[in-house]
Amino acid sequence: MRQGFFISFEGGEGAGKSTQIERLAARLRAKKYDVVVTREPGGSAGAEAVRHVILSGAAEEFGPKMEAMLFAAARADHVEQLIRPAIERGAIVLCDRFIDSSRVYQGVTGGLSADFMAALEKISVGDAMPDITIIFDIDPAEGLKRAHKRRPAGDQPDRFEKETVEMHQRRREAFLAIAKAEPQRCHVIDAAGAMKRVENAVTELVFEQLAGHRAVAKPEEATDNV
Amino acid sequence: MRQGFFISFEGGEGAGKSTQIERLAARLRAKKYDVVVTREPGGSAGAEAVRHVILSGAAEEFGPKMEAMLFAAARADHVEQLIRPAIERGAIVLCDRFIDSSRVYQGVTGGLSADFMAALEKISVGDAMPDITIIFDIDPAEGLKRAHKRRPAGDQPDRFEKETVEMHQRRREAFLAIAKAEPQRCHVIDAAGAMKRVENAVTELVFEQLAGHRAVAKPEEATDNV
Repeated sequence: MRQGFFISFEGGEGAGKSTQIERLAARLRAKKYDVVVTREPGGSAGAEAVRHVILSGAAEEFGPKMEAMLFAAARADHVEQLIRPAIERGAIVLCDRFIDSSRVYQGVTGGLSADFMAALEKISVGDAMPDITIIFDIDPAEGLKRAHKRRPAGDQPDRFEKETVEMHQRRREAFLAIAKAEPQRCHVIDAAGAMKRVENAVTELVFEQLAGHRAVAKPEEATDNV
Repeated sequence: MRQGFFISFEGGEGAGKSTQIERLAARLRAKKYDVVVTREPGGSAGAEAVRHVILSGAAEEFGPKMEAMLFAAARADHVEQLIRPAIERGAIVLCDRFIDSSRVYQGVTGGLSADFMAALEKISVGDAMPDITIIFDIDPAEGLKRAHKRRPAGDQPDRFEKETVEMHQRRREAFLAIAKAEPQRCHVIDAAGAMKRVENAVTELVFEQLAGHRAVAKPEEATDNV
């Protein structure tokens, strides 16, 4: 039944993820592939409704477990309404954040067990797992340097800024640990270099993977309805 | 760690469930037990917030899978915020509807697989399962008779009324099937008889079970803070 190709993109914020997704989508569409670009949380009507609950003022009252389950409920809707139908018609789905963000943000830095997260993932995603996941890796120190450049002379990093860097470091390590544990699915790309170099690395990886995945709708058969 | 006693009440609507819960709570409190009465969906702040999403106009857009996950998220919050702490301090928790309603309404008549529902249940409830579940059983024909008495002479049952009776029949059978599969936890009580007779059956069952459950906070130690 499965014909398309599902790529998720992960990594810290500010690594240029959304720009790279746009460029990849343009390249694939130029080759007449049927491309669907989406993102989490959100991506479908039901998921957007749940997103509003998560982001509402009442969210502080929720425990981390309930928040993780709400994210998973939104994901189940996103998969059923958008991702799975797109894959089944042979499209290439590019999704900005997916299961690995949950594993890292709610699991590792949210304090929920890997077993719990795995059970939730099985329920919400089922067999609609990404064919490949591209992890944009960047040293949080890079982000710190940029923040330092923007900070007025004499000011010290505030506590929030410090916490954020530490948190980013833990998340980076968690993403790299996932990549190590699942080398067939996960591909780490160094996002610290020039944007064009990162773009080339993504393009090479994706076209190589597509060449080996014969079930994707061939360009000449694909519709350009996105 | 577990000290209290958790009783869930299930069965079709109109079987006198909430009245029986009130009467049982009064009897237990008269014996100085610490009693917490709660109900689903809802029962905690987070669960109430999710309940509003489920009951909002947007609910029609959700697939049954997402709806089941939202119910489970609400249940996880209810268990963490209210049920588990009450059990741990030695209270007797009386909950109007719990996992079996999900199994029946979302699983059996909602078309979701038993495997999916079991996985969701494990995630949301964990080890906070009811010690006993009292299923109030009543022939849907009883409900139909009452509806017939209220209906003006000459009027036929409408399609909705007919569907509802068939649905009630399927649900009744599903509740009885659960009771058969888990005879240690589930106790079926005939709810068709006089209210006083049903009350006596519930009282006898619960006090017998409490006598065998030595870990419940003894009446003389219990606080009457509910």
